[in-house]
Amino acid sequence: MSEPLKVGLAGLGTVGASVVQLLERGRDKIIARCGRPVEIVAVSARSRGKKRGLDLRKFHWVADPVELARDPSIDVLVEVIGGAGDPAKAAVEAALASGKSVVTANKALLARHGQKLAALAERHAVALNFEASVGGGIPIIKTLREGLNGNGFSRVYGILNGTCNYILSRMEQDRLAFEDCLREAQRLGYAEADPSFDIEGHDTAQKLSILAGLAFGTRLDPAAIFVEGISSISLADLDAADELGYRVKLLGVAVKTEAGIEQRVHPTMVPKDSAIAQVMGVTNAVTVDAEGLAPITLVGPGAGGLATASSVVSDLADIARGVRSAPFGRPAARMTATRKAPMQHHEGGYYIRLLARDRPGTAATIARRLAQQGISLESIVQRHSSSGHGPSASGRSGAAVPVIMITYATSEDAVRRALSAVRRDRVISGQPQVIRIEKN
Amino acid sequence: MSEPLKVGLAGLGTVGASVVQLLERGRDKIIARCGRPVEIVAVSARSRGKKRGLDLRKFHWVADPVELARDPSIDVLVEVIGGAGDPAKAAVEAALASGKSVVTANKALLARHGQKLAALAERHAVALNFEASVGGGIPIIKTLREGLNGNGFSRVYGILNGTCNYILSRMEQDRLAFEDCLREAQRLGYAEADPSFDIEGHDTAQKLSILAGLAFGTRLDPAAIFVEGISSISLADLDAADELGYRVKLLGVAVKTEAGIEQRVHPTMVPKDSAIAQVMGVTNAVTVDAEGLAPITLVGPGAGGLATASSVVSDLADIARGVRSAPFGRPAARMTATRKAPMQHHEGGYYIRLLARDRPGTAATIARRLAQQGISLESIVQRHSSSGHGPSASGRSGAAVPVIMITYATSEDAVRRALSAVRRDRVISGQPQVIRIEKN
Repeated sequence: MSEPLKVGLAGLGTVGASVVQLLERGRDKIIARCGRPVEIVAVSARSRGKKRGLDLRKFHWVADPVELARDPSIDVLVEVIGGAGDPAKAAVEAALASGKSVVTANKALLARHGQKLAALAERHAVALNFEASVGGGIPIIKTLREGLNGNGFSRVYGILNGTCNYILSRMEQDRLAFEDCLREAQRLGYAEADPSFDIEGHDTAQKLSILAGLAFGTRLDPAAIFVEGISSISLADLDAADELGYRVKLLGVAVKTEAGIEQRVHPTMVPKDSAIAQVMGVTNAVTVDAEGLAPITLVGPGAGGLATASSVVSDLADIARGVRSAPFGRPAARMTATRKAPMQHHEGGYYIRLLARDRPGTAATIARRLAQQGISLESIVQRHSSSGHGPSASGRSGAAVPVIMITYATSEDAVRRALSAVRRDRVISGQPQVIRIEKN
Repeated sequence: MSEPLKVGLAGLGTVGASVVQLLERGRDKIIARCGRPVEIVAVSARSRGKKRGLDLRKFHWVADPVELARDPSIDVLVEVIGGAGDPAKAAVEAALASGKSVVTANKALLARHGQKLAALAERHAVALNFEASVGGGIPIIKTLREGLNGNGFSRVYGILNGTCNYILSRMEQDRLAFEDCLREAQRLGYAEADPSFDIEGHDTAQKLSILAGLAFGTRLDPAAIFVEGISSISLADLDAADELGYRVKLLGVAVKTEAGIEQRVHPTMVPKDSAIAQVMGVTNAVTVDAEGLAPITLVGPGAGGLATASSVVSDLADIARGVRSAPFGRPAARMTATRKAPMQHHEGGYYIRLLARDRPGTAATIARRLAQQGISLESIVQRHSSSGHGPSASGRSGAAVPVIMITYATSEDAVRRALSAVRRDRVISGQPQVIRIEKN
């Protein structure tokens, strides 16, 4: 049997503790599969005394994760501290610069500095693996990095945030309001006390930038992604979606268009019979389209200590076997500024829900404004308040009637211009709701 | 740039031709991802003159695939001839024995000789990759071989045969009889002229034995798998399943039990809200359960030239990058005769549909026979012929009433004994229908 792969573990939260457990429990399997053991030799965490239910006495304790990263007794640094800044960043840089491979679950760090870190890893001919950074236990990084090499990818999209999917599923299945579901998610520990990072779509955007980098070689830059969260989604939207054969999901989408690579995060109507529409609760899913091929969808746990740790251990096993790929599947230097398509150029179908004033000529005005922008309607549903459709569709003044329209493929620009005109015409009350449609 | 990886391609059917196309189209991407080109240098097929829409002039032609396999000008043999016997077997053996890596899509060959071939590959320190052999374009082999290394797998199951899934989907969605859907599948080219290999479950069994070998290290032996096909499934079963919250799928299941590794292929009722239940048409899907983790499901095209070729190219790219894993994830010598659990010991829920004679005491007799075997019922539905449930549920003599029962977990043995007793009691007409239930 060969020498063990010696691991320094930085971070002993839920994921770190699960890594310790999995490596112990899976020892024999790892030896059988890698031909050598994978052993933690040193650990680092903020507090040494904290109760974790782990016996840490057999590990060398290093207070400073950067010092751990440079420790000559380790071959690999596992970074599960989190956060885009130091000490996570400094520790990862120090490890790579001293010729050690790194396994990290840190989406924020990768989204912000992934390309520089990949270049550093390549310069020192070491691995930088991050299966755990997107989709927890789902092997999406490996699939994009190593699979499907013959075909170009044309689209990658998915449910990348369990909190949002939990809230949308619960709203739909139990007919609860957004705020109630959010509070429940917080109580269950699925959402943070400050939930905005999740529900406003920023977590999804960080993960999407990693996937887009792998699939298309785009420079990682979550700030360049169009982001819209789920807080404006109401039961009325979910009902209408259901009736029209759709479900609403918060998707991260990266797609090759003629204008460049379009990257966007927003509530999306997906056909009810698509694989992604079936994904309920905290589960994540990613669909990969490659040119000329039927889509491939990977579904699984998006978070959780064990699921995430299982991806960390898979990454370690690759390193133990001597497998090393370029972190983003191609040299980091080639991840040039792939042309990004601006959101105004986005083309697709749209769901539009308006509250139209219930007086003669309103429908004609709305129809004219849409037609002026070249927008054709696939369907239009207008409900009078007295239709008995329930409180969700008619919860406002009796003088306003909900109108729901589904457009054929059009552009973001056209929709925005048409709705501005409709607002100026004063034939609607409140803000129109707009949800983009993603076909499978 | 490094030396190209030189490929000998044996077989120029749909998959072989797609491999030629993908390698040409994807040349630049492959160089970017692997650091070197992957080039076909020689080909072999039964007929040289056949029209394939390919320019084969630039490739060296070798009439005999075994000679091609030994050709010193190639580094890798791609075998897409098919079949468990020669020339496929002889060619793969010759390539491995002469120190060349092999990429194959040949499930029959692997199911029959996989372990010996893996040992040969290991002895010569070359790769034997077969992503294309199961689930076409779905990266399930890589996921089982390289992923999730920390946790033991507890169950692998899936829809592995597109023909059967097409037929069952079409029956359910369009209320057609089995025979009509089969004929249609034949017309569309989804089913062979002799469809028994697909519809009787043998194709699924071959693929399952490969998955079980990867997941559990079981010795590959499709003959040891319990196999039951879909030809007895009627619309009445699909209707009842629907009503009870299930869908019927032909699954291959390999599961760790206390008695050993249970491997079985049979029509299965899966909960309608499971990921696998959503998979319709020719699509394939595989779910992987690892201990302590939420399941991971991979969904995608199970067949088709491009999808299969895309997996072949991914396998080639791994070889070009110098990645080599043990073919079944652990040394072939360790794939000892893992204890196989006999089907009589299978435990689970059962769906039972009987045609009971409509006379006093029948229900009591059936209930007693089940109780004698310790079988408890989760639900029982009895319909009188006059209930207007449609022809599917009452297509027999007016004197027989369909009775549908769902049992709590019990054993295969108990169900078989109870139904034998019921038959001996002469309270039912015809054969009882039994469908196993698989929970997610």
